[in-house]
Amino acid sequence: MSSSSIKTPNVITCRAAVGYGAGEALVIEEVEVSPPQPMEIRIKVVSTSLCRSDITAWSQAPIFPRIFGHEASGIVESVGEGVTEFEEGDHVLTLFTGECMTCRHCTSGKSNMCQVLGLERKGVMHSDQKTRFSIKGKPIYHYCAVSSFSEYTVVHSGCALKVSSLAPLDKICLLSCGVSAGLGAAWKVANITEGSTVVIFGLGTVGLSVAQGAKQRGASRIIGVDINSEKMEKAKAFGITEFVNPHDCNEPVQQVIKQMTDGGADYSFECIGDTGMVTTALQSCCDGWGLTVTLGVPKVNPEISSHYGLFLSGRTLRGSLFGGWRPKSDLHSLVDMYMRKEIQIDEFITHNLPFEDINKAFDLMMEGKCLRCVIHMPK
Amino acid sequence: MSSSSIKTPNVITCRAAVGYGAGEALVIEEVEVSPPQPMEIRIKVVSTSLCRSDITAWSQAPIFPRIFGHEASGIVESVGEGVTEFEEGDHVLTLFTGECMTCRHCTSGKSNMCQVLGLERKGVMHSDQKTRFSIKGKPIYHYCAVSSFSEYTVVHSGCALKVSSLAPLDKICLLSCGVSAGLGAAWKVANITEGSTVVIFGLGTVGLSVAQGAKQRGASRIIGVDINSEKMEKAKAFGITEFVNPHDCNEPVQQVIKQMTDGGADYSFECIGDTGMVTTALQSCCDGWGLTVTLGVPKVNPEISSHYGLFLSGRTLRGSLFGGWRPKSDLHSLVDMYMRKEIQIDEFITHNLPFEDINKAFDLMMEGKCLRCVIHMPK
Repeated sequence: MSSSSIKTPNVITCRAAVGYGAGEALVIEEVEVSPPQPMEIRIKVVSTSLCRSDITAWSQAPIFPRIFGHEASGIVESVGEGVTEFEEGDHVLTLFTGECMTCRHCTSGKSNMCQVLGLERKGVMHSDQKTRFSIKGKPIYHYCAVSSFSEYTVVHSGCALKVSSLAPLDKICLLSCGVSAGLGAAWKVANITEGSTVVIFGLGTVGLSVAQGAKQRGASRIIGVDINSEKMEKAKAFGITEFVNPHDCNEPVQQVIKQMTDGGADYSFECIGDTGMVTTALQSCCDGWGLTVTLGVPKVNPEISSHYGLFLSGRTLRGSLFGGWRPKSDLHSLVDMYMRKEIQIDEFITHNLPFEDINKAFDLMMEGKCLRCVIHMPK
Repeated sequence: MSSSSIKTPNVITCRAAVGYGAGEALVIEEVEVSPPQPMEIRIKVVSTSLCRSDITAWSQAPIFPRIFGHEASGIVESVGEGVTEFEEGDHVLTLFTGECMTCRHCTSGKSNMCQVLGLERKGVMHSDQKTRFSIKGKPIYHYCAVSSFSEYTVVHSGCALKVSSLAPLDKICLLSCGVSAGLGAAWKVANITEGSTVVIFGLGTVGLSVAQGAKQRGASRIIGVDINSEKMEKAKAFGITEFVNPHDCNEPVQQVIKQMTDGGADYSFECIGDTGMVTTALQSCCDGWGLTVTLGVPKVNPEISSHYGLFLSGRTLRGSLFGGWRPKSDLHSLVDMYMRKEIQIDEFITHNLPFEDINKAFDLMMEGKCLRCVIHMPK
C-alpha cells in the first residue's frame, strides 16, 4: 500500500490560468484545489499542450469562470478513497473521455463512449456534479473534467492512464488528445488499407496525425488540403504526398480532388471542425466504397447537410471521437509505440512555453502559427 | 451458336403502358420496339412487379412520354451484335443498375456502382443515349434503361442476368429490385451480427426484406416502425418481433426506440425514402457503434441534415443501392437461395394482375394496400 492511501490530503493552493469570459485572456490566479473525492486522484500537472477544442470552448462556452486544458501529463499527488489503481508518484496522462470499465459501452469492447465517464460538458466532475476548484470559496468550473491549465488538478481515476516513468511527460502529453485522435481515425475508424488514396482536410496536429497513420498503413497517395500554403513543407514530414490549397484552385476543391484521383479518394478526413466541409469531404471520396471520417467539433454550424445521393452511391460517413481509442484499454499501446520510435510526436511540438506565457499559446494557435505549444508547469 | 446470332431481328410492334404526364394514368398503346443494338438483347417480358421508385419517377419525373418498370423477368427474343452471353430463349432478370465487368468499380470487387452501366436517369440507353421505343416514329423514353411495362423491351446485355429455366419467372422478378435491396442492406451493407437489435423504418417490401435478412442473421430484436398498424401481422411473418406506430406514441419515436433498446439499436434502416427520417434513424441507433443504413430514394427533400454530434458519438451512416449487390456477380446466389427455399419471395406478392390492369397496381401501392403486385404480361 502506498503511504498516500493512509494520508488525508488537504486543500492545495496553487496557480491556475482562469478564464473569466469568452475570448478574454486567461488570468493566472491563486486557486484552491480540493482533495480528491472517492475514486478520484489529484495530479501535479507537468506538461499540458493547447488543443484547438480548448480555443473553441474558450471562445464560445457560456461556462465561466473556468479552467481549460485537457491534453496533459502529470504525477499523482494523492488519491481518494477507494482508488487502488494509482498511488502517489505515478506518472499519468489525463483522459478527456474516460473509461469506467463496467458500463454497457466499456464492456462491449467496441465503443469508447463510456456512459459514466464520457465527455463532460457542464464544467463539473462526473461523480457529484460539483467542482474541485475555488477562489476564496467561489467555484471555478472544469473543462472536460480535466482542467490541466493549473499546477494541480483533480480527475476521476477513470480519466487518467498510468504510464511508464521512463516516458517523457513533456512529449507524450500530446497523446492525451490530438495525435491519438488522428492516428486512431486512420487506423481504428477508417482502417486504411495499403495502396489506398487518402485526402485530409485541415493540416493541424489532428490532420497530420491522420497523415502519419495513413503513411504507416502504406497509403499510396496522401493529399493534404489547407488554405495555408506554409503548411506544405511541414506536412511532407508527416506523410503528405500532395498539397492542395483551395484558394489556388479554379474549380471547387472536390472537383480538383476527383480529377487527381480518377473519381475520388478511397478515404477522406474532415479535420477542420467545419460541418460544411463534411459535404466537400464526402464529394472528394469515391462512389462505391468511399469513406469519410469526421473528427472535428464544429466551431459554428452543428448541422451536417448532404445530398442523399452521396450515400446511395456507396459512401459512408463515420464520426471519430478520440480516434475510437478506448482510452484506458488502448492508449498505452501508443505510448509504447512512441518509446520504440514507431510514431512521431516531437515533430508536432513547434513551441515550448512556460506556464506564465499560456496566453501566447492561444495567440499562436489562433494565428495559425503553431502545431502544438507545450506549456511547461513550474517544477 | 444460336440461330438468333445469324438472324437479323426486325422492329417489333407490341403493347406497352405509356406514361404521358406526371401522375396521369398509363395508356396501353401499340409501340415499335427496335432491334437490339450491339451488345444489347431484346426481351419478351414475362412478369414485372411494381416498385415504389416507379411511382416516385412517374409522379415527379420531367421525362415523358415514357415506359416505366424495372423489376422484371423475361425470355430473350433476340440478341444484338457482339452478344455471346445470351441467346434466344434464355430466361433473364432485368437489372436496373448493370455491371460492365471492366470499369474500375466492377473490377474492384467492392462496388456495385458500375461506371458504364450504372443507374440511368435520362430515359435513354447507355450505349447511344437514344431510345428503342417509338410510336409512329416519335420516341418514347426508357426508365432505368429497363422499361418492363411493355411486352417487349431492349436492355444492354450488362443489364440482364441469365437464370435457370426452372426458376419461376413470376416470382423471382421480385429479386430484380426490392427484395434483393433489403436482403443486401442487411447482409452486405450492414453485415448484421447474431444477437443484435435492429430497427426498421418503413415496412414495405424493402423494409420487410431487411427484416427477413436480419432474422436470418439471428438478430435478437427486430423492431418495425410504420404509421400503418395494419402491417403489423404481415410483418411478423418476415421476422419483425415488435411493432411501433409513431402515431400511437406520446414521445418522438426515436425516444421510444431508445427506451426499448437501452440506449438505441445496433442497426437502423431508413426504408421510407424520407431524408427527414434519416436523422430519426440515426437517433434510434446507439452511441459507440450504431450503424444507420439509408436505402430509399427520397420523394421530396434530397438533403440529409443531421447534428454532427450523432456522428462524433460513434454512429455511421451508409447508403445502400440495390443492397450493395454486384448484380451480375452476386444476384444468382439469391435465385439459388429462393430455389432452395432459404429466402421468402412468394409472401411479398399480395396481388397478381393482368397487364391490362397495370393502373390498378399503381392505385394499390399509392393507397398502401399492397406489398408487391406482380403484373403478368400476355403469353
